[in-house]
Amino acid sequence: MSNVLVLYESNNRGYTQKMAEFVAEGVSGVPGVRVRLLSNDQAQTKDLYWADGLALGSPTNLGGISWRMKKWWDERSFDTWGELDGKLACTFSSSGAWGGGSEHACQALTTLLMNFGMLVFGVTDYVAPKMSPHYGAVCAGEPRSDAEKEMCRRLGLRLAEWCAVYVAGQPGAHPKLAAYDRSIKHS
Amino acid sequence: MSNVLVLYESNNRGYTQKMAEFVAEGVSGVPGVRVRLLSNDQAQTKDLYWADGLALGSPTNLGGISWRMKKWWDERSFDTWGELDGKLACTFSSSGAWGGGSEHACQALTTLLMNFGMLVFGVTDYVAPKMSPHYGAVCAGEPRSDAEKEMCRRLGLRLAEWCAVYVAGQPGAHPKLAAYDRSIKHS
Amino acid sequence: MSNVLVLYESNNRGYTQKMAEFVAEGVSGVPGVRVRLLSNDQAQTKDLYWADGLALGSPTNLGGISWRMKKWWDERSFDTWGELDGKLACTFSSSGAWGGGSEHACQALTTLLMNFGMLVFGVTDYVAPKMSPHYGAVCAGEPRSDAEKEMCRRLGLRLAEWCAVYVAGQPGAHPKLAAYDRSIKHS
Amino acid sequence: MSNVLVLYESNNRGYTQKMAEFVAEGVSGVPGVRVRLLSNDQAQTKDLYWADGLALGSPTNLGGISWRMKKWWDERSFDTWGELDGKLACTFSSSGAWGGGSEHACQALTTLLMNFGMLVFGVTDYVAPKMSPHYGAVCAGEPRSDAEKEMCRRLGLRLAEWCAVYVAGQPGAHPKLAAYDRSIKHS
Repeated sequence: MSNVLVLYESNNRGYTQKMAEFVAEGVSGVPGVRVRLLSNDQAQTKDLYWADGLALGSPTNLGGISWRMKKWWDERSFDTWGELDGKLACTFSSSGAWGGGSEHACQALTTLLMNFGMLVFGVTDYVAPKMSPHYGAVCAGEPRSDAEKEMCRRLGLRLAEWCAVYVAGQPGAHPKLAAYDRSIKHS
Repeated sequence: MSNVLVLYESNNRGYTQKMAEFVAEGVSGVPGVRVRLLSNDQAQTKDLYWADGLALGSPTNLGGISWRMKKWWDERSFDTWGELDGKLACTFSSSGAWGGGSEHACQALTTLLMNFGMLVFGVTDYVAPKMSPHYGAVCAGEPRSDAEKEMCRRLGLRLAEWCAVYVAGQPGAHPKLAAYDRSIKHS
Repeated sequence: MSNVLVLYESNNRGYTQKMAEFVAEGVSGVPGVRVRLLSNDQAQTKDLYWADGLALGSPTNLGGISWRMKKWWDERSFDTWGELDGKLACTFSSSGAWGGGSEHACQALTTLLMNFGMLVFGVTDYVAPKMSPHYGAVCAGEPRSDAEKEMCRRLGLRLAEWCAVYVAGQPGAHPKLAAYDRSIKHS
Repeated sequence: MSNVLVLYESNNRGYTQKMAEFVAEGVSGVPGVRVRLLSNDQAQTKDLYWADGLALGSPTNLGGISWRMKKWWDERSFDTWGELDGKLACTFSSSGAWGGGSEHACQALTTLLMNFGMLVFGVTDYVAPKMSPHYGAVCAGEPRSDAEKEMCRRLGLRLAEWCAVYVAGQPGAHPKLAAYDRSIKHS
């Protein structure tokens, strides 16, 4: 068994929350992985300790992490820093536009997670032509299309797979052995 | 008068070249700005010195600059480094997918240009709902849709505008005074 | 004449504030440039409008912008976004260690400034052997050594020079014509 | 048992090679981990397949990856891409100066490794006051001081520890159980 926390900060539009729900849905695709879906208002330090894997999401605000999510981590850093080393982690973000900074926000989240000593990854798979969560799952606005939803699910699935392989000791969960199509290429 | 160089490296698919052509088209939207459109095989050091403004493009290769474009700069750096300070610059890149690293590649190009002391910018405008070259113009594959083409043109236009305002001394060219619609918002 | 705002968020240690003071000192090296040195508690939206050039500093918190500085911008973005295009800007940050993320924090600040349409730059000069504010001025802890102080001053000086050249129309202020030594190389 | 590849590109100064040697030395601190130390001229695709963990180093050239190291990966990407998912990886780089882009180069290497689906990490430990490989090991010039050498060794040690914990199934190798001092803080 292993534990996954999907932690998100969602502005009043709720786009990042919707991404988080699809990420959590993807996590559930691997048997034996427990998932908690929590916003920054709900999550507590103990949830970080509980988790083997973490998917961290923020709206893209000015090309970076929302100040609320940043505050959540800044204020917890004195207690938890040095205690989270080695957890597996990934990121997701919704921006106002393609080209609008969602990759930058995922990168800022990646930097934050690396600061805590976590092992951070993206997903190589194309989930549709010209759509891939290479460095985290990204959306422009709300995840509406099947491809956008699948980008989020695939990120969660991959997180659950790495937790199964590396934490729960199930090498058969490796995505290279996966039954689903990982290779939809751009047209 | 001012001078703009649109410099691109295009893989065999030619997507970045097509972006470059639209960028150059956008530059032409400002009277009195001369433009040169050159690939890394054509451009020479003298073109860098000639330019007041530079739009630099590369295919997104593994989330970064193509080695051919990087080589072009690495090999010229001994001669030109310290001589290009203060030029105005921006970036563009085509990746295989949305979420596939085009923002990361633009960022890597931005870092390179800042290394040379240039002043680097993105474009605040939305060119269509959910499309904006905030940190450089980005495409997934070839620029085909009107929005993708306009993203490239707008980047070139903005570069020409800044060259007009700051190099040629034409404050009336400032985009805040522009007649075109800068405010198409995401739906 | 031109106007420069040095805006900083300083944690209780005050390291970023000290960097900001040296940056402001550097700005004063160019005659005819007015400077305001303000913290996030002091600065108001009108200071942004007033400024032609902006030096923006934050402590490096978890490899990024402090939540307080991020909040300052996030909350002002609805009013000021689209109104600050074309201002000249640069960044500075103090982290707990070399290798501790000060370049990442400057990059996050750069991304934020590009989001607002500003033209962002670093400084090519070496201010001492193995010390250069290539992508913004960086320190580990407090700026104590002459080199660390000079890194901050040079950043401010360069900002004032670009404001003189591009805003006040004084081409003679270009750093390539500068009397000071720009070329101290790493040993 | 697990396998670690230390792969580096070293310019004619050889600074990155020296870093690589210290990284490899650090890897050897964990019993049962095999290490290969190879330059881009020596390493082959089979070395990538062989490795469970990878430390990737490049000189900082213009704030990014050297074109030679980028070429090595760009040219291998067609064969190896999609085959390296889940490997554990970290980065190191030597720049000409503090503030000169070594963190940016490590970030560019991180982006490349994430593109291949690897799990990338930094090291939380301070190895001396004001010295830490938070996002990869960084040097200005050659690693000469004890702190600079230890930064490289600690990175290699951490890579070997994660390989022991996650690949070889040795939870006792986790750094939180380590006997060495992980907590030297900045003064």
